[in-house]
Amino acid sequence: MKQPDLPDAAFVARSLSLFRQRAPLVHCMTNDVVHSFTANVLLALHASPAMVIDAEEAAQFSAIADALLINVGTLTPPRAGAMLAAVQAANDATTPWTLDPVAVGTLRLRTNFCQQLLALKPALIRGNASEILALSNRQGGGRGVDTQHQAEQALAAAQRLGQRCATIVAVTGETDYVTDGERTLRVPGGSPLMTRVVGTGCALSAVAAGFAALPGDRLQHIASACRVMACAGEQAAARAQGPGSFIPAFLDALWNLNAEALA
Amino acid sequence: MKQPDLPDAAFVARSLSLFRQRAPLVHCMTNDVVHSFTANVLLALHASPAMVIDAEEAAQFSAIADALLINVGTLTPPRAGAMLAAVQAANDATTPWTLDPVAVGTLRLRTNFCQQLLALKPALIRGNASEILALSNRQGGGRGVDTQHQAEQALAAAQRLGQRCATIVAVTGETDYVTDGERTLRVPGGSPLMTRVVGTGCALSAVAAGFAALPGDRLQHIASACRVMACAGEQAAARAQGPGSFIPAFLDALWNLNAEALA
Amino acid sequence: MKQPDLPDAAFVARSLSLFRQRAPLVHCMTNDVVHSFTANVLLALHASPAMVIDAEEAAQFSAIADALLINVGTLTPPRAGAMLAAVQAANDATTPWTLDPVAVGTLRLRTNFCQQLLALKPALIRGNASEILALSNRQGGGRGVDTQHQAEQALAAAQRLGQRCATIVAVTGETDYVTDGERTLRVPGGSPLMTRVVGTGCALSAVAAGFAALPGDRLQHIASACRVMACAGEQAAARAQGPGSFIPAFLDALWNLNAEALA
Repeated sequence: MKQPDLPDAAFVARSLSLFRQRAPLVHCMTNDVVHSFTANVLLALHASPAMVIDAEEAAQFSAIADALLINVGTLTPPRAGAMLAAVQAANDATTPWTLDPVAVGTLRLRTNFCQQLLALKPALIRGNASEILALSNRQGGGRGVDTQHQAEQALAAAQRLGQRCATIVAVTGETDYVTDGERTLRVPGGSPLMTRVVGTGCALSAVAAGFAALPGDRLQHIASACRVMACAGEQAAARAQGPGSFIPAFLDALWNLNAEALA
Repeated sequence: MKQPDLPDAAFVARSLSLFRQRAPLVHCMTNDVVHSFTANVLLALHASPAMVIDAEEAAQFSAIADALLINVGTLTPPRAGAMLAAVQAANDATTPWTLDPVAVGTLRLRTNFCQQLLALKPALIRGNASEILALSNRQGGGRGVDTQHQAEQALAAAQRLGQRCATIVAVTGETDYVTDGERTLRVPGGSPLMTRVVGTGCALSAVAAGFAALPGDRLQHIASACRVMACAGEQAAARAQGPGSFIPAFLDALWNLNAEALA
Repeated sequence: MKQPDLPDAAFVARSLSLFRQRAPLVHCMTNDVVHSFTANVLLALHASPAMVIDAEEAAQFSAIADALLINVGTLTPPRAGAMLAAVQAANDATTPWTLDPVAVGTLRLRTNFCQQLLALKPALIRGNASEILALSNRQGGGRGVDTQHQAEQALAAAQRLGQRCATIVAVTGETDYVTDGERTLRVPGGSPLMTRVVGTGCALSAVAAGFAALPGDRLQHIASACRVMACAGEQAAARAQGPGSFIPAFLDALWNLNAEALA
């Protein structure tokens, strides 16, 4: 089988530049573990993160934000209610929203909730291979938050899911794949150290949520988000002595990333 | 118009020294995003942070803490109830409490709650220009958590709010202003990198809450807190390659800050 | 009185090696302040942390995890209910679970809850001296989260508690003591900087929860966890300029720790 194309390097650089210039306001309804890191990743890219969690406020806020992220990592029934209110308000305001289905397939509350959310037209679904397989095949998946599969194994499932839900699906791993069911882009790169720091996947979802709000080719913008994170991860890993020093190096790399490094 | 005075450098140094020596126990009821950074900032200054959130426990704890911080960044109705219980217990115990009205004016739940809290005599209100304008003028303010105004534009509103509520108001930005409506102090400094790290404003509120509990001139102590944070921010920015390396450098700077650096 | 023995250095090295190889899935039901740091500490040691908080999901997850941590730092009644469900499921699945009784004795909700949990057979209780004294003597303890006592002062109480509850108790401080009431091991080391970073104690509980799930001598495995954290703390403190740079250095040290350093 022919490998999917890489994103165009010049497009990625323009996409990053546009992201920094527009500084999207990203409403993050995310899990308890990654709030702070997610916000710092967005801030390092000049975006404006905001975490608003009350149902009424979240609905109000989604309508004025540029993008909405729904991450079900520490879901509870009250949070599911607030997320639903925010998604509906986002849809009414045509704010694009992104689903990060953390550990879907393993646990009941979130599995049912994610299936419910699929009907509400996410602009993007970003998950690891086990999550995308579970969501697409409506079956159990990983062991906790870690994937048991390679991204390649979930590519066909991602393409089916993209087509069925008329959305873009990013299945991420050593290589990321971004697909709408018709077109598929491939983004290699990153570093194994990224799996030894909590929240890099969740933060990618938040960043991709913001890129999905840019004008232009959404599929390419989302692949650009993957490339930006992978490139910063490579730079940080080259400077780090371990996962501890990786964290500040990664945020610095996002801050300093330029077209030359992306090429 | 004559510029407000700077705080006295010798007072700032004595204030910091007194803070470290007393190591105030600061009860932080703050938002989900900044818990950890707030605690680390207080610990770096030798204070003792504690986050207690259940209504009954929070009321119990406010009565034994030296200071209480109320930050409405991720407010929900149950949290508002617990905060109210803590504020009432703090007032009964004459524990000074500080209000950080994150994004007040934009979102309903917190806007109503902050107006309700104003009647309960905070010792300090710390916000950005949009927040202080919204609180003082009872009108809508910023776009999310970021200010749309310069601190200068909110100075008159801060002075009115200080007088109306018989409290101290710190409106912070590139230059910070601390006022009780009669006297006003001006604290320049800091670094733009501080706006690219989540929680520097929230952490300032927590630190200022602790300084407000010191014996002596409360207005000057709070201006000292602003100066301590600005000075550490400058030192960290000088060493940082971006917002990532800024974070550890900032905590180290707070830890190592001395009278010489503050002068 | 004769000093308790140190853990055997060769055992500690084998224990760490076994931990990395097994990479236990540790279900952390912990407080809001330390989620992210706890996860990063576990990841740096190659373990797999997961934070699942809904009652039904938590019970489901405890049954598949290798270990469960219950930390009552930001307890609320709904969280207590979810924790209870998780503990019961862990016991049904014979998953060992660890109790970190943060600030027990000071605050009512958690004090009653911790006494209730004692009947549910934790594999390990990890606390500071004030917490262990409060739990053992059923009396009030520290001022907030900081201990008012040296670990030595709580050793007899820890031994009584271990015997009464047929569990292992780790009372940690400048020197850590790990006891089951019969045998006691002593782990000196670490660094005062560890008390100036939020969550080092909470993260130790999470790590020890994982070590408690290893096959073999549980008491020695838990003492090994204490030694691993103390050793990484010493290495990080030697490189740090303050508590800020301590954090990445500590995670890097955990990542790079080897038998030679532990000897």
